[in-house]
Amino acid sequence: MSHYRFAVNVAPKAGILDPQGRAVEGSLGHLGVTGVSGVRVGRRVELTVEAGSEAEARATVDRLAAELFANPLIEAFEIESIAGAGSTA
Amino acid sequence: MSHYRFAVNVAPKAGILDPQGRAVEGSLGHLGVTGVSGVRVGRRVELTVEAGSEAEARATVDRLAAELFANPLIEAFEIESIAGAGSTA
Repeated sequence: MSHYRFAVNVAPKAGILDPQGRAVEGSLGHLGVTGVSGVRVGRRVELTVEAGSEAEARATVDRLAAELFANPLIEAFEIESIAGAGSTA
Repeated sequence: MSHYRFAVNVAPKAGILDPQGRAVEGSLGHLGVTGVSGVRVGRRVELTVEAGSEAEARATVDRLAAELFANPLIEAFEIESIAGAGSTA
């Protein structure tokens, strides 16, 4: 059994209202920042999975992303393999 | 002026309590998932910056990350350049 570390990036689907993104854009003027657009605010979940292979570990992450981390109706997610396997929090 | 798209990943600093991560770990048993550890839940902000160079755009993102997206007392952030420059939400 090996340890594999992944990140799951969850973002509002295109076309879905993103009130946090709009709030950020509304704050830019107060900071004197211009030229920023297309702000999307999502979540990022990092986790370590102990499994017999990376494919097996990724299957677990895929299931967790779809059932626990993201709301598939309004959010899309992508899974990335990251360094630091074996690290714990 | 060109458009550059970035993502800012914000995560609780090591040693800082991560109640959302603990909540996720507490849910794993209900889903029948074992072998998952080190869950950290953070935010991910994607944005497009119009600037004269990538270095200039990145400086804007760095400032926004430190002043608006993350609380430097308890959160760390990393900036990544992503594809899809010019896309807007």
